[in-house]
Amino acid sequence: MVPVKNPSISVDCVVFGFDGTSLKVLLVKRGYRERQPDGQTVLREDVKLPGSPIYQDEDVSSSAYRILEEMTNLKQVYLKQLQVFSDPDRIGDDDLGWLNETYGFETRRIISIAYYSRVKLSPKIISHTAMRRAEWHDVQSVKRLALDHKAILMTALKTLSTQLANEPIAFELLPRKFTIRQLQNLYEAILGIEIDNRNFRKKILGSGYLEPLQEREKGVAHKPAQYYQFNRHAYERETRLKSKLNFINWHD
Amino acid sequence: MVPVKNPSISVDCVVFGFDGTSLKVLLVKRGYRERQPDGQTVLREDVKLPGSPIYQDEDVSSSAYRILEEMTNLKQVYLKQLQVFSDPDRIGDDDLGWLNETYGFETRRIISIAYYSRVKLSPKIISHTAMRRAEWHDVQSVKRLALDHKAILMTALKTLSTQLANEPIAFELLPRKFTIRQLQNLYEAILGIEIDNRNFRKKILGSGYLEPLQEREKGVAHKPAQYYQFNRHAYERETRLKSKLNFINWHD
Repeated sequence: MVPVKNPSISVDCVVFGFDGTSLKVLLVKRGYRERQPDGQTVLREDVKLPGSPIYQDEDVSSSAYRILEEMTNLKQVYLKQLQVFSDPDRIGDDDLGWLNETYGFETRRIISIAYYSRVKLSPKIISHTAMRRAEWHDVQSVKRLALDHKAILMTALKTLSTQLANEPIAFELLPRKFTIRQLQNLYEAILGIEIDNRNFRKKILGSGYLEPLQEREKGVAHKPAQYYQFNRHAYERETRLKSKLNFINWHD
Repeated sequence: MVPVKNPSISVDCVVFGFDGTSLKVLLVKRGYRERQPDGQTVLREDVKLPGSPIYQDEDVSSSAYRILEEMTNLKQVYLKQLQVFSDPDRIGDDDLGWLNETYGFETRRIISIAYYSRVKLSPKIISHTAMRRAEWHDVQSVKRLALDHKAILMTALKTLSTQLANEPIAFELLPRKFTIRQLQNLYEAILGIEIDNRNFRKKILGSGYLEPLQEREKGVAHKPAQYYQFNRHAYERETRLKSKLNFINWHD
């Protein structure tokens, strides 16, 4: 028996990845019918975030994991609740028509509980998601998304850039070993700014959070750059545990 | 015309306050009918978080502010989204009956979008909320709440204690001027632990975040304690702006 879908509640997932150069977001295709001035309809395709209405008997988080896997083949990622999108007019009449037709609803509105995630992009993951026709798009080049998904993406990106300045999330997007150039590319991609190379290098190496490895890039045209890894222990010791507002983990 | 309520989506608000000694949460009364073994029903009363289903044509956040004001008289507080509570079995059969009867629904499940807030408690606010029969209960003495509201309260409390160790939220709950004793009481109430007086005093004064005022307690039996205020500028300078992961606001 096919589970019944809830016509009032959906989930949408913003999954960010980084390929060493640019910030990516995982998108899926949507087919829809566009009405023409002469009353005819034409089949069109656009892209959207992976997402769908939840089942009637399903927890929202379980639903997000299930839908992400069904639509993109991606599992074993950590999805975090971003925000509820609930403007009663968030979905225009045409898209509401698409929604009701696709899912057999007669709803006037649906709220979306948005989740987001950061994954280490690899050729393996890319071929894995491609099996479901899900694609990783450059965030900076995403012009338009179906429904209100552009707004959801922008909210997730804003959250990502705030976190980047305060938490060591960069290292969740980078491979275990990375070059300073890759780290800088990531900062520039998320913040949408250019950063001075020498200043960046000086600051990030001075932080004490990076550990040099006895290994350099291979098979590159330019001078091979050194690899580094994130020293989480050094970070934790310096920040969270040392917070002057923290009276639980005192380190005298 | 009375707006139609959405049978699938509700909001609940966890509003914390601090009276100088203990941590409080704002609760409202709920009347319900309890079935007896002989089939009769008896009217009962218990307490719950301020909350209700949203209107069909309403944004979730607007709904949270409206419902909080309608049920507790409280406005001009900042409500932040805490988490969605969406276990399909989160509400038992009896409470589902109460819900359907109260709001004229025939729903099998409802999700709750929980909000939380921190307010500076004052006699004025207490008398204001009392006009709607809303009451400030000691968090530590809350045994049972209607529906799954105890679980929502505990989640909010956990969030509050995590924040307390990492962000200067204590000063949103304290009056503008406060004693070290009051600050320590607040930490102890939120964390549910006892903290050594001398250590606390030494650590918090050593942080540089507190500014002594030329003023002491009045009309107290014990030796009047000195008042302090939070120096947000010193805090910002030392933490956020100086994050070693922050490449936007560089301060060389």
